[in-house]
Parts: sequence; C-alpha cells; structure tokens
Amino acid sequence: MGDLVLTTYDWVPEPPRGYVRDLRVRWALEEAGLPYRIESTPFHDRAADHLAHQPFNQVPWLTDGDLSIFESGAILMHLGERSEALMPADPRGRIQVMEWVFAALNSVEMAGLPWSLMVFAGQTEDTPAWKTLDGFLNHRLKHLEPVLAEREWLAGRFSVADILMADVLRLVGRFDGLAAYPACRDYAARATARPCFIKAHTDQMAHFAAADERRP
Amino acid sequence: MGDLVLTTYDWVPEPPRGYVRDLRVRWALEEAGLPYRIESTPFHDRAADHLAHQPFNQVPWLTDGDLSIFESGAILMHLGERSEALMPADPRGRIQVMEWVFAALNSVEMAGLPWSLMVFAGQTEDTPAWKTLDGFLNHRLKHLEPVLAEREWLAGRFSVADILMADVLRLVGRFDGLAAYPACRDYAARATARPCFIKAHTDQMAHFAAADERRP
Repeated sequence: MGDLVLTTYDWVPEPPRGYVRDLRVRWALEEAGLPYRIESTPFHDRAADHLAHQPFNQVPWLTDGDLSIFESGAILMHLGERSEALMPADPRGRIQVMEWVFAALNSVEMAGLPWSLMVFAGQTEDTPAWKTLDGFLNHRLKHLEPVLAEREWLAGRFSVADILMADVLRLVGRFDGLAAYPACRDYAARATARPCFIKAHTDQMAHFAAADERRP
Repeated sequence: MGDLVLTTYDWVPEPPRGYVRDLRVRWALEEAGLPYRIESTPFHDRAADHLAHQPFNQVPWLTDGDLSIFESGAILMHLGERSEALMPADPRGRIQVMEWVFAALNSVEMAGLPWSLMVFAGQTEDTPAWKTLDGFLNHRLKHLEPVLAEREWLAGRFSVADILMADVLRLVGRFDGLAAYPACRDYAARATARPCFIKAHTDQMAHFAAADERRP
C-alpha cells in the first residue's frame, strides 16, 4: 500500500469534460476517504511513457506505490479491496459487487458507449446499423429497469458497482437515452446527488478549466 | 467452496454455436482441472427463475454451492481465486490479470462485439455509423497489436485474462477483422490451440448438437 496518484490528461476539449474516466476513480477515492493526488499527462503530444501505463493510449491510470494500474474497472476493484466503504470484505458481498461491476461495463456500457458515440456524432439516421445498436442498448436497459425499480443500490449497499453503473447510465442519459426508463434515471440521479460524486465532478471540471487559463 | 454447476441454454441456432459464453467458463474450468457439471435452461420459453440467476436474460451463470454468479468476467475472476492455474495469488500478479481482464471486456470487446453484430447482419454499408464503429475497433486493435507482438500471454503467464481476450479476438477474427493484425491473429491461434479450449469448444458444440437430435 503506497501513495495513491491518479493520472489524467492535462486538458481535453469541452464535450468530454465531466465524463473523462478519472472521474470514476476520483469518486471512489472520495467515497473511501483515501488521500490521493492528481497528476497530468499531455493530451496533445502524448508522453513517451504513456503507453507503458495505459497501453490503449487513454486515461486514467492509478499508481499505488510502485504498482501502476489501468482500466477504470480494475482500478475500482483494487480500491474496493482497500476500503470497505467501496466493497464488502465477505466473499458473498464481494462477488455480488463484482458481478455488477462486470454487468455495468460488459453488459450495459458495451451497448451504451458505442450508442452514445453515434448520437454525439449525429449518426442516428434511419440505418440498419443504428437500429441494431439502439435495439442492443434498449434490450439491456429493459432488463436493468426492473432491477433498479426494486433496490436502492445494486449489491445491497452502495459500492464500486454503483459508481460504474451510474457513470455508464449518466452518459446514456446525457443523450436522452433513459427517457423510457424512470428507475434507471432515478438511480443515476440518486448516485450523482452523493457529495462524493459532486466533489469528483467539480474537481474534474476545475482541473480542465485551469488548463484553459494556462493557455497563451 | 461447493459443487460447480454451469448453466447454459438447452439449444441455440447455428450461428452462435461455438461462441456462446459458457465456453469461456468451460475453458477456465478445464484449465483449472476443477470438476463441474453442465445444466441446461430453455432458450425458448425462458424459465421462471432465469432472471433471478441472470438479470439480462442471458447465459451463462455458475453456481458454486449456494452462490450463483452471472457475467463471464465475474465468473472467471471467481474461478481465478479458486485456482492458481488461472490467476497468480500474489497481489501484483493478480492486479496484472485483473487489468487485462477489464481491458479484454471493456476496451476491446466493447468495440468488437457491436462491430461483429453489424458485420454478421450485413450492415457494413458505407455509413457514418459504421465508420465510427470500425474506427473504434481499429483504434483498439492498433494498440493491442504491439503488446501481443512482444509477449506470449498478457499477464506474464497464461491466465483468465487470456481466455477472455482470446475469446473476444476470435469473434472479431471470425468476421475477418484481424486481417491487418498478425500478432492478434497469432495470439488467438495460440490460445485456441490449447487442449482445454479444444475440449471446451467440442463440448459446447456437442451439447447443442445433442439438442437437435432430441427435437421431434
């Protein structure tokens, strides 16, 4: 267990601000009350060692002492093992969190992120490709809706699974993809009303805004 | 730790045979040498308790004693914790496996599966939506290629991360998506040449073929 350092870009364009994935890690760190600091890596002119930390040339990565971890899912599971505020320590509670962590990323985000990319790019004309993707997302949301209608948090209590699922859903909601799913909307609103989300979001926005001010 | 029971559909149409996700779990169980049995759940007329095991109405799920686990990623992490053949027990080795497990499912499959759905459906006409998805997948493969060019397995030795990444890549390869990525192709070929993959694949094909024979 060492010092926790979270690395994100020094700057990003306006549209992704508030949605860059260091937000998931900031949020988890705030919920856990773990001390951390933020470092920046160039968005333009990627650093020579960027790929050594993040092989897909993206952010974030977290260093914990001499351990460097990429993938927000892996980082949150690692933090969950450091803090019971993020994941219960008993095997059954841990497994429940883990299955919903994977459900958020591999069942819901796998449909929701490509869908959001296309809506953002205005590529939602009436093509078979769009209909396939829209049907894929709606299949997943249709099944998530009754789950969220009957529970406050996914795994019995708030956990890293909720950080990931709420972040996945709020991106879809940004592009009006949750209109037909009130329980999904309410869940995302409930999660993002937490003070630790608000702090994480505010801090990310301030981080990128400060970069604007430094520009000549 | 209880008896391991893997549940998959009783039957599926021809196209997904050999690619249903119980294959990932069969493969891991074979590599670990853990005893297990297979149960079937109806593909048509889904069982009343299906959603209690798998809330997205899909397969597989694994029961380990009285614990029922869904999401292939969560199941493989759980098995990795039961067998060092699937994941090292030391924290550093474990984290490396975990980050590549999430990379397979959240960085590569998130692009590769929607891409494969569209190719399978013949929706690859020259539309902006298709180009977005094709660019998304190729960005990920372009970065994975040099990683796989210089290592045999993702996390130092064979692990559940390789089961997931190889399964993700072979689906893309089925639709000729790996033509420009020889290291990705060689890696998928190396993984699927393992006797435990061959047994898992043969067993899944036989399971669904037996269902055909039972049909009137």
